[in-house]
Amino acid sequence: MSERSLLNQLIDALRCLPGVGPKSAQRMAFHLLDHDREGGRRLAQVMGEAMERVNRCGRCRTLSERDLCALCSNPNRDQSLLCVVETAPEIVAIEQATGYRGLYFVLGGRLSPLDGMGPEELGLPALEGRLREGGLSEVILAVSATVEGIATSNFIADLAARYGVKVTRIAHGVPLGGELGQVDGGTLAHAFAGRHSI
Amino acid sequence: MSERSLLNQLIDALRCLPGVGPKSAQRMAFHLLDHDREGGRRLAQVMGEAMERVNRCGRCRTLSERDLCALCSNPNRDQSLLCVVETAPEIVAIEQATGYRGLYFVLGGRLSPLDGMGPEELGLPALEGRLREGGLSEVILAVSATVEGIATSNFIADLAARYGVKVTRIAHGVPLGGELGQVDGGTLAHAFAGRHSI
Repeated sequence: MSERSLLNQLIDALRCLPGVGPKSAQRMAFHLLDHDREGGRRLAQVMGEAMERVNRCGRCRTLSERDLCALCSNPNRDQSLLCVVETAPEIVAIEQATGYRGLYFVLGGRLSPLDGMGPEELGLPALEGRLREGGLSEVILAVSATVEGIATSNFIADLAARYGVKVTRIAHGVPLGGELGQVDGGTLAHAFAGRHSI
Repeated sequence: MSERSLLNQLIDALRCLPGVGPKSAQRMAFHLLDHDREGGRRLAQVMGEAMERVNRCGRCRTLSERDLCALCSNPNRDQSLLCVVETAPEIVAIEQATGYRGLYFVLGGRLSPLDGMGPEELGLPALEGRLREGGLSEVILAVSATVEGIATSNFIADLAARYGVKVTRIAHGVPLGGELGQVDGGTLAHAFAGRHSI
């Protein structure tokens, strides 16, 4: 073979998908070519379009092909609540699992100066702008309870305090249905320290 | 949202890939948009091209964007050996694992009249053409040892016998390193019946 066949190029290209190794990529390529060309054509077209046109919402920084995402432009959402998350998929999870009807703000990471993640990279100036605007009654921190996540939470809590906005943090502890023996020590210690009377 | 967002369209479209459910599709879409737009662009382009241009090799029926695939057009392959497989990925597996240097023929399934898989659908007229041409010294059946696979093998063996071409079948038995207790009864019975002196 003088040049790589289109089939092999497709198998290689599929490996950019997370969790797809050489075997899965091969299975995917053969499946599409043998059984679902229409699906493959549609995927190629939608993917090409999405890579060019999807950007960040100017207000909450989630992924959207519009300047203002569907949540930020929805007048029925409670404009006084702002939930801060690390990444966009967490919005989907919160929307599906909870009854939260406020707005969101996506950091896109955690404070980690050594990795080049400072307040600028997390969009904290924009978040401060939201606080300065007024109208917010509560900022809910749904950031992971790692060292960097806690540093990020504290940074945002200080920021909100400066504008007199209440800050809350979602509860961390033993998952529902979780067996104590299977929960890591850090979580268990956290759950113990955070016990409350019933 | 009046129309489905491009992000949601991408998540939906990714589900045409085998083994990709709603969670993986979401993870893939966010990964490409957040971290690998270049990979996504390339995948979209190669996939679109492959869906249009990859067809079947006119001789062995494997997937190829050329009329004659790289294996069939390679003069260094042994033109007197023909290995019959059910699907194209098996060619990749045989090429990687064995020292086989002959040619291939892809059935694209097994004889199963109730599912509409007859000799025509499996390309058996073309296979008979290869036998009629002459030049073949051996047809190797690398077809699965299921009821339908065995029927298919027998059909092809009869065909080859008519043209006086030797037919062999790859060995079925207990896998190397396989523990007897973990092998299914059918395989074990087959391995017992096929025992040979050492």
